[in-house]
Amino acid sequence: MTDRIRTFPWQKLHEFCRDVFRRLDVPEADARVAADVLSAADLRGIDSHGVARLRSYADLLAAGRINPRPRVQIVRESPSTATVDGDNGLGLVVGPAANTIAMDKAASAGSGWVAVCHTNHYGIAGYYVLKALERDMIGWAMTNTTKAVAPLWGAERVLGTNPLAIAFPAKEEPPIVLDMSTCTVPYGKIEMAMRRGETIPVGWAIDREGRPTTDPTAMLDGGALLPLGGDREHGGHKGYGLALAIDVLSGVLSGANWGPFTPPFALRQALPSRRVGKGIGHFFGALRIDAFRDPEEFKTQVDDFVRTLRSTRPAPGTQGPLVPGDPEREAEKERTRSGIPLLPVVVEELQEVSRNTGVPFD
Amino acid sequence: MTDRIRTFPWQKLHEFCRDVFRRLDVPEADARVAADVLSAADLRGIDSHGVARLRSYADLLAAGRINPRPRVQIVRESPSTATVDGDNGLGLVVGPAANTIAMDKAASAGSGWVAVCHTNHYGIAGYYVLKALERDMIGWAMTNTTKAVAPLWGAERVLGTNPLAIAFPAKEEPPIVLDMSTCTVPYGKIEMAMRRGETIPVGWAIDREGRPTTDPTAMLDGGALLPLGGDREHGGHKGYGLALAIDVLSGVLSGANWGPFTPPFALRQALPSRRVGKGIGHFFGALRIDAFRDPEEFKTQVDDFVRTLRSTRPAPGTQGPLVPGDPEREAEKERTRSGIPLLPVVVEELQEVSRNTGVPFD
Repeated sequence: MTDRIRTFPWQKLHEFCRDVFRRLDVPEADARVAADVLSAADLRGIDSHGVARLRSYADLLAAGRINPRPRVQIVRESPSTATVDGDNGLGLVVGPAANTIAMDKAASAGSGWVAVCHTNHYGIAGYYVLKALERDMIGWAMTNTTKAVAPLWGAERVLGTNPLAIAFPAKEEPPIVLDMSTCTVPYGKIEMAMRRGETIPVGWAIDREGRPTTDPTAMLDGGALLPLGGDREHGGHKGYGLALAIDVLSGVLSGANWGPFTPPFALRQALPSRRVGKGIGHFFGALRIDAFRDPEEFKTQVDDFVRTLRSTRPAPGTQGPLVPGDPEREAEKERTRSGIPLLPVVVEELQEVSRNTGVPFD
Repeated sequence: MTDRIRTFPWQKLHEFCRDVFRRLDVPEADARVAADVLSAADLRGIDSHGVARLRSYADLLAAGRINPRPRVQIVRESPSTATVDGDNGLGLVVGPAANTIAMDKAASAGSGWVAVCHTNHYGIAGYYVLKALERDMIGWAMTNTTKAVAPLWGAERVLGTNPLAIAFPAKEEPPIVLDMSTCTVPYGKIEMAMRRGETIPVGWAIDREGRPTTDPTAMLDGGALLPLGGDREHGGHKGYGLALAIDVLSGVLSGANWGPFTPPFALRQALPSRRVGKGIGHFFGALRIDAFRDPEEFKTQVDDFVRTLRSTRPAPGTQGPLVPGDPEREAEKERTRSGIPLLPVVVEELQEVSRNTGVPFD
């Protein structure tokens, strides 16, 4: 794991992703959107959700487990809501389509809320709320995911890392863009500690017996992540409650699978013990600002809020509070200029995808 | 603090609250609703938000800081949204009125979202989402509150404890009712530790210099609560982001004050350094289930989810996971039967309210 990291222009990775999806029978326009979503993750520094996942998407497409040409359909709707069946398409394609429906509903009804079933992993939640900002709206995005997290006081994986993103436009300041999972840390952080031979802090995970552990291997080997907050004393019931609410909105309300029955993302993972719906679920929302307040006034106040946060007296040893979205925006600036750094293991996976699909890489 | 705890039938406390509000010029119907909200807190075991706060409400009314006869008005609206000006009324009156508007919007447009400015503290967020359940809807409630919480890496109070409640109806099982603040623990837990001479766990609070502290007095004396997650390593940026998002929705979107400028709840607390809007802010939402899915199907699936959670293998030393809303429902069952236990300090406050208003107590 100490091998040389290689850096690629994002455009090159985008093109590769697009061509791989094309080769796997995804239509041109959809392949481009799917590559956009992956590139957004790479550019924003969320390495786990970008090209590093291309192989899983490609595997599932090649195995016929994802439909490359879905007919995405509204199956129920009201003036401000819709339920969408993703026809088992790529989440990277179904997600953007459903998110657009939410924004279109908001344009006409003030707000738009879309629950999606029969879909697959949709990349970073942040991508969707950035789209809402382009239309001067407040954006919301949630999804359920494969089980990885124990409910507080449980000894096994029942819930996903169920992320929530929400974004607010500003005027002169950059927007506020919150994009968070509802567990303490993502799975990838546990894997990284294992590879480095390091321990993990108390509050991140439990072992297969449900006991708190500082051993990353004990979590990976049948243990579970802890919800945001960790134990009861530190508010673990709150992170658990958030993960559950996101699952009900994304999974249950849409008619998707939920909780421990949410299908896995990679071919090698075991299928759930039963089926309670179709695919995984997403939930998108959009609020038109002028449905509540003059947008210029709103954005001027968000500027003021952002500046107030930045002028907060810093805690010792820190530069003071960041505003949600700062780290991702910094990463995007840097990576647009100097490229996307990829670990050797990721490069090898992309080379394998290249061999399997015949799309040249490198 | 070890004095005898006295127990009162909730109806008696409800009647006392109602009569106190009446005496302070609140109209009969509003006084009854305000008492309903306080009783909901007492019954559900959220002692800090029930009659224990009556004196603060009464003080602010008596001092003319809250308008007893507000004209609650929609100032902007769309088919699924509204902004409401609470005319500086009791949050316990403005909140229920605005929440009803959200539910009425949902009835006609599928979803309803109402931002409220120029209002005051509204009791427990849980009250509002229970109202949505009565109409077979998914309910949401948020509010900003007086500053008490430091943003991650800040050394001072900037944000409120900004709660979020959300509720989902079930069929045979009880509903899922999440009602949580976005900090690790409420202010009251720090005060309780101080009175008992106990230390507090790392992750709850910082002192006035912004350093982590286990001394409750150090927090109370110019320190701050930490957002859910605590430090960076345990996801404190996530709790901070949630508190901020709730503040933007409740405060900024409505035209209320926000962040450190949110007015305080008690007469004795200092006023903020500047005014950036009107009063405090709330945000309510309602989703009509049949706008997304057949309600019977939805509720059957929620039942299944609840049972799945209850059958999760328990962590050692626990009875296994609870479902959000369980503790409050248990408290309500018990307290409906055997009454509301009040600390001597609360009884003394109510006696003082009684002397000041001439409404008999005890």
